[in-house]
Amino acid sequence: MTEALARSPQIDHQRATFPDGLALDSGAVIAPLSVAYRSYGKLNAQRSNAILVCHALTGDQYVAEPHPITGKPGWWEAVVGPGKPVDTDRFFVICANVLGGCMGSSGPAEPMPQAAPTPGASRPYGTDFPSITIRDMVRAQKLLVDHLGIPRLLAVVGGSMGGMQVLEWAATYPEMVVAAAPIACAAYHSAQNIAFHEVGRAAIHGDPDWVGGRYWEDGRIPAKGLSVARMVAHITYLSEAALGRKFGRRLRGASALTFLEDVFEVESYLRHQGSTFVTRFDANSYLTITRAMDYFDMASEHGGDLPAAFRGTSTRFLVASFSSDWLFPTEESRALVRALNAAAANTSFVEIATDKGHDAFLLDEPVFHRALGGFLRGAAERVGV
Amino acid sequence: MTEALARSPQIDHQRATFPDGLALDSGAVIAPLSVAYRSYGKLNAQRSNAILVCHALTGDQYVAEPHPITGKPGWWEAVVGPGKPVDTDRFFVICANVLGGCMGSSGPAEPMPQAAPTPGASRPYGTDFPSITIRDMVRAQKLLVDHLGIPRLLAVVGGSMGGMQVLEWAATYPEMVVAAAPIACAAYHSAQNIAFHEVGRAAIHGDPDWVGGRYWEDGRIPAKGLSVARMVAHITYLSEAALGRKFGRRLRGASALTFLEDVFEVESYLRHQGSTFVTRFDANSYLTITRAMDYFDMASEHGGDLPAAFRGTSTRFLVASFSSDWLFPTEESRALVRALNAAAANTSFVEIATDKGHDAFLLDEPVFHRALGGFLRGAAERVGV
Repeated sequence: MTEALARSPQIDHQRATFPDGLALDSGAVIAPLSVAYRSYGKLNAQRSNAILVCHALTGDQYVAEPHPITGKPGWWEAVVGPGKPVDTDRFFVICANVLGGCMGSSGPAEPMPQAAPTPGASRPYGTDFPSITIRDMVRAQKLLVDHLGIPRLLAVVGGSMGGMQVLEWAATYPEMVVAAAPIACAAYHSAQNIAFHEVGRAAIHGDPDWVGGRYWEDGRIPAKGLSVARMVAHITYLSEAALGRKFGRRLRGASALTFLEDVFEVESYLRHQGSTFVTRFDANSYLTITRAMDYFDMASEHGGDLPAAFRGTSTRFLVASFSSDWLFPTEESRALVRALNAAAANTSFVEIATDKGHDAFLLDEPVFHRALGGFLRGAAERVGV
Repeated sequence: MTEALARSPQIDHQRATFPDGLALDSGAVIAPLSVAYRSYGKLNAQRSNAILVCHALTGDQYVAEPHPITGKPGWWEAVVGPGKPVDTDRFFVICANVLGGCMGSSGPAEPMPQAAPTPGASRPYGTDFPSITIRDMVRAQKLLVDHLGIPRLLAVVGGSMGGMQVLEWAATYPEMVVAAAPIACAAYHSAQNIAFHEVGRAAIHGDPDWVGGRYWEDGRIPAKGLSVARMVAHITYLSEAALGRKFGRRLRGASALTFLEDVFEVESYLRHQGSTFVTRFDANSYLTITRAMDYFDMASEHGGDLPAAFRGTSTRFLVASFSSDWLFPTEESRALVRALNAAAANTSFVEIATDKGHDAFLLDEPVFHRALGGFLRGAAERVGV
């Protein structure tokens, strides 16, 4: 394997490349495989203080530093950093761009390998990128962790789709995971969540600039469709109370009866969310990753028996949910906790009272931060870190 | 005024036409004004047994008979008919297509009056149709009720946007409304609901076949955008439990790993909802009516004082909500009830326990049907019908 700062569109991402590639759940093989990643803190001499952070649908590896495209702070700076719950003074923190993503890991936006490479003839995978699962994402991360010479992760931590990856890590490589914190997630994607994803996909498919997925051919992007997909998803990340508190029915102009577009502040906010998203995210990546989330159903991967995914595990779990999260309601975390209990796993559960909705896992939630910080310190003490 | 079976696209609708038109909240005037409607049952000699049913966003006047485009049963046959809660053996039931609708009432799809009419040069209003409010819809219905020679309505009844009209009827023409049943609604449209509407509008605006609203010029329709709008709205009409029970994660093919489009049944259901909707609904109508719902805020119409809208009323109210309705949560109905109580209005309130979501008001809900039927019989006895 080779490691280099390789060029992906616009930015150099730090990444590891695996020429032998990865065999996927679908039977397809991605070769070579690239895994882009960032790390923070120092790996100790025993290589025992590594924490893997898994990102959500539209996140990436830039957890605790400015984003190279938007210039905004890293997406989890509230949680990851010196003295933070995921303490980079004490832990070596890794985050990889997911397989299928668009920030340097193998995905629809990356160049497709050619049987007989011709200079200048390279083109992205686009819709020829195979369908992937959450477990495929985790297998790619496993290659990276091995490559970094880390025999066992002190913890795997993530929210939303990141939490799905945490669960797959614990189920697939239990001996490698001392502690696992699946946050604001569930052991399967619900019909309602699949339905919201399908709205976003229909919007992208319906955009003529998607060009059947080959928009890269003449430099177009399906900006309108991708923007609508982001808008609807964004609503599901917030609670009704959060939207009401943030915007209520506040008008942008003097009177509703001016009857212009963007009458209400909440509308211009949403449009802004949509239009900025398209500058940093690839539409085919969005299609690929939403589909991977929809496939996610750990019970069905284990013959319909969710506890079987975790039976005999020595991993410690912290399951965390947020009371106003209607995308991954607390009830789904409780079902996960029941399955972990049925598997006799060492499990803590905390429901954080908040009206901020699903996005709360990214925000300033001191009770959550204390719970996560305490859980990770406990895991560290257990293994003498 | 004249009344005729006038031709609108495809179908003859029964309608009343008012040459003097209607002055709108925006200051614009629609003239002539057409109000398409249907009626069921017989008006009694005292003209005292009339019940006005108000329809929701995508409903129409075909309440209790097959729909002239889809051939499906009327949208409220569970509630309106012989021996039903709104009993057509006893009551004269009227339903008008809302102002701004696309089933024969004045709206974006109807021909725009011309200063100097040229034969063959007629074109629809399209986006030249003025912006309207829920109160404008009610004023148009008032013209129809006067035209039919009905001095006072025994009741005004409706769910969702229909419930908003019920509230405006009671506030604007209190002397004409013996009983009012606002169902599955609220006294204002929330930030979350505005946000979902804006997603639908963005999808329509982004469809190149919308052509800036002039799609009628060459016979196109923005089918993809309108379909996406319907898909996202449809999710909000159902509860997570209803979607889970109806579809769960059931696959359409043998295995998710076939990785085709429409992998899950819920996706093909939603796509079907979207694609059939575009055969019966006009995109500019959808834009106009969703905007009218977003403007709806009865408190702000009364100086921020919601009880002021109803103070001194002798109308009896039945407010009904459904426990799993997250589009118009019970809490918003309770806020309405508190305002009615503060106005000393005669008010009953019932929350129906159901897991069917917002759509429950259209479905087989015996407890709701008994409450509504009893309320209407009580009102009828009160005025000697």
